Amino acid sequence: MNSNVPRWSVWEFSKSAAVDAANPFDLEIKAVFQKDNRRLTSFGFYDGEGVFKIRFMPDCEGEWTYQIYSEIPELDGLTGSFTCTPPKAGERGVARAQGLHFAYDDGTPLYPLGTTCYAWVHQPRELRRQTIESLRKTPGFKKIRMCVFPKHYDFNTNEPELYAFEGNPQSSFDYTRPNPRFFAHLEACISDLKDIGVEADLILFHAYDHWGFANMDEECNHRYLKYITARLSSYTNVWWSLANEYDLLRHLTEQDWDGFAKIIEERDYASHLMSIHNCFGFYNHNKPWITHCSIQRQDVYKTTEYTNEWIKAYQKPATLDEIGYEGDINWGWGNLTAEELMRRSWEAYVRGGYPGHGETYVSPDDILWWSKGGILKGESPARYNFLMEICKETGPIDYLPERSPWDMPVGGIEGKVYIAYLGFSRPRFRAFHSSHPYLGRSNLPEGNYKVEIIDTWNMAMTNCGIMAREDLYVELPGRQYMAVRFTVV
Amino acid sequence: MNSNVPRWSVWEFSKSAAVDAANPFDLEIKAVFQKDNRRLTSFGFYDGEGVFKIRFMPDCEGEWTYQIYSEIPELDGLTGSFTCTPPKAGERGVARAQGLHFAYDDGTPLYPLGTTCYAWVHQPRELRRQTIESLRKTPGFKKIRMCVFPKHYDFNTNEPELYAFEGNPQSSFDYTRPNPRFFAHLEACISDLKDIGVEADLILFHAYDHWGFANMDEECNHRYLKYITARLSSYTNVWWSLANEYDLLRHLTEQDWDGFAKIIEERDYASHLMSIHNCFGFYNHNKPWITHCSIQRQDVYKTTEYTNEWIKAYQKPATLDEIGYEGDINWGWGNLTAEELMRRSWEAYVRGGYPGHGETYVSPDDILWWSKGGILKGESPARYNFLMEICKETGPIDYLPERSPWDMPVGGIEGKVYIAYLGFSRPRFRAFHSSHPYLGRSNLPEGNYKVEIIDTWNMAMTNCGIMAREDLYVELPGRQYMAVRFTVV
Repeated sequence: MNSNVPRWSVWEFSKSAAVDAANPFDLEIKAVFQKDNRRLTSFGFYDGEGVFKIRFMPDCEGEWTYQIYSEIPELDGLTGSFTCTPPKAGERGVARAQGLHFAYDDGTPLYPLGTTCYAWVHQPRELRRQTIESLRKTPGFKKIRMCVFPKHYDFNTNEPELYAFEGNPQSSFDYTRPNPRFFAHLEACISDLKDIGVEADLILFHAYDHWGFANMDEECNHRYLKYITARLSSYTNVWWSLANEYDLLRHLTEQDWDGFAKIIEERDYASHLMSIHNCFGFYNHNKPWITHCSIQRQDVYKTTEYTNEWIKAYQKPATLDEIGYEGDINWGWGNLTAEELMRRSWEAYVRGGYPGHGETYVSPDDILWWSKGGILKGESPARYNFLMEICKETGPIDYLPERSPWDMPVGGIEGKVYIAYLGFSRPRFRAFHSSHPYLGRSNLPEGNYKVEIIDTWNMAMTNCGIMAREDLYVELPGRQYMAVRFTVV
Repeated sequence: MNSNVPRWSVWEFSKSAAVDAANPFDLEIKAVFQKDNRRLTSFGFYDGEGVFKIRFMPDCEGEWTYQIYSEIPELDGLTGSFTCTPPKAGERGVARAQGLHFAYDDGTPLYPLGTTCYAWVHQPRELRRQTIESLRKTPGFKKIRMCVFPKHYDFNTNEPELYAFEGNPQSSFDYTRPNPRFFAHLEACISDLKDIGVEADLILFHAYDHWGFANMDEECNHRYLKYITARLSSYTNVWWSLANEYDLLRHLTEQDWDGFAKIIEERDYASHLMSIHNCFGFYNHNKPWITHCSIQRQDVYKTTEYTNEWIKAYQKPATLDEIGYEGDINWGWGNLTAEELMRRSWEAYVRGGYPGHGETYVSPDDILWWSKGGILKGESPARYNFLMEICKETGPIDYLPERSPWDMPVGGIEGKVYIAYLGFSRPRFRAFHSSHPYLGRSNLPEGNYKVEIIDTWNMAMTNCGIMAREDLYVELPGRQYMAVRFTVV
């Protein structure tokens, strides 16, 4: 075993043992890790070929000891220790909900603007390499929605090399036996994401299935959840997304989902972010196990304009995980212009949420980013990079209803900075002070502001200089997709 | 008096009488017109300089007699007759609600796509001439929203030449005495509209006022309504719009508005269309006196997409009389692109409603079409002409929910014609048959269809030939604002 491990990296115990159980995946093994008064229990897992492993991600530096508890006699009672050293360069720990926003363990804010490649891990090596390369070149994507199970749907009918369970579609699957080779592959993919600073928003169940993974019985579902949490809880960049469109898995009840969440809460000693994503109505995001709202828009026309209402209702941060995609396929969710996707993304942003991208251009090779990854073809990713820069410069912002006139949402940090987003409005001028009765009132507080026009489409900033609140009259270019940022000086 | 008058033209009785009343505008005069068993009562009015008039628009041909009843002794008991001859060429009578649509008295459907020039009648002669000329060149506008009273608002602060009441803003107004010269001017404007086939959607009250016309007492309001109905009920192309944004006239109650409507119903023997337009919530359009819903959209983002719900709720035809304007002024309602205005207009159309245009481009001379008329500068009017052609070709259509997939509204005439509107969706293909589970199902009935792609923005039609329902797979250009029309063959 490693005797040194950097903070927030993965320490691993690995040992062969004679296996005579009917199903070695049912054998329980766990370790209690201790440093001073801090004690954490990490569950282990069977990795095939007689090998059992326990992983641990230490979250503070110093000497840790552990003791193993197992029904496998050879492993039970083993003890050991290791030293947690300072984190690797750039390592920030696990992402957490912090108030209505997100931050890593080290306190650095995380702006989880994201994208979606549901089945990228199920594609051939070269395509996966392209996906990682595309993400590496797109710092505006800090999170990717991706499925554990393969996907069977329009433009996505190829079989993967590896499945999460033993067996194959030609014969059958044994849903009682996870496939360690698949999970090792999944871990490699998650590590690749980690290396480029991307969070893996891991979808544990979905309905786009023809292998039976969507219809396993409760025992298999629970075994699967115990297995995946044992393997992945020590990866900093994992988020648990219980489902994509949970309500399409019609045989699963609220009790089932709550039960799944309970297993994850018990087994994930690192308490990763956890959410559940809807097709129609939202799951009850008030439940304590839900760390943030993972939202699919509910209306075809009015989408992220509801973001502030959702955040207010649930008092949790929100990722807008399906707001339509840039593309030109048949479905209404997959044929938006980049302009419309970015408009929705900015509406989400100024209303305090974190929007998600997707790309669905018809392609002769049927490789659409949203499903398989590969090369990004659209115009949105560059604009996500630009939005990420704005996020980082500005800090986490909330929707400010009392600063927002009826026709223009304003988000910001009270007393520090305000961003007004004009969306499809394209005025040639706008007054932001309250003294003129007609000129588009807003109620910024008294003070002096650095005023910047943000052309969110052309990704350009225009510095308008310093203005007193009473002089906040801004000439604009008469184009859509402009924002104005007011920074208190 | 004229001894002949064409059907649906204005016959007028005019006679001087000695006036010794304190207010001759309070003297009652009316005539009962009779042809066979048909009897209609038209109220007369004082036209100034000792002259009283009674107007009448006969709605059937043949010999009409009349008898005058008045508290003016010289006029009381006068009788006479005239002959109603066939209508002038192109004359179709008064526009009526017909089911959920509109038609003239002669049965011809009217598609009241419209525009808005609130204060055009209050502008100088040359500007008015331009307005009429602009309308004449835009057959897509069959209705214009316009105010009786002048307007005081952004970009509209010039005083008119004539006011609806005696007096002037330098001294004061006598709200008890209508100004016959102004009303004669208004009638000339309405006649000019009539000559080019445009309906005058006449706004009787509005809040954009600094003359006191918005705050007259009940007696003055009632006198004004009696006066204007006496003068204008004989004009075929008048629609009564009780208010623009009735709810901004905060001192007026529902009882007041219902009282106004009662006066109009009693006095307007020709029963012109009557509506009341909102700013915030709708007036109760279920009231029997309301012939159609005159609607301002209630949400900034989702606007005419509600049209079918409104029509269903009120079971009356709907004109969408404020859905945002093409322009670039400061206000969110006045800085849409032409594309967005047309998108909203088509959403209204396929959902069974009749959208209204407006134009608000910043102009150095402060002449914005929406308020003053003049020259049309935008890109929407040509597209309204195109939409009008589609209306005429297709006939009045209703929203067909059972034909509409979740992401694409379909309107039409069941068994005859269906129009699917794709709006901001821009697919490269779409299947319209129901046999493929994923390809954008719709449920057109069995049969063969002439299929046409309508490029609503580029105003072009592509004939795709005849297809059987099972073959309804349509290749599309991957651009926004397309519709597809299916005509049963």
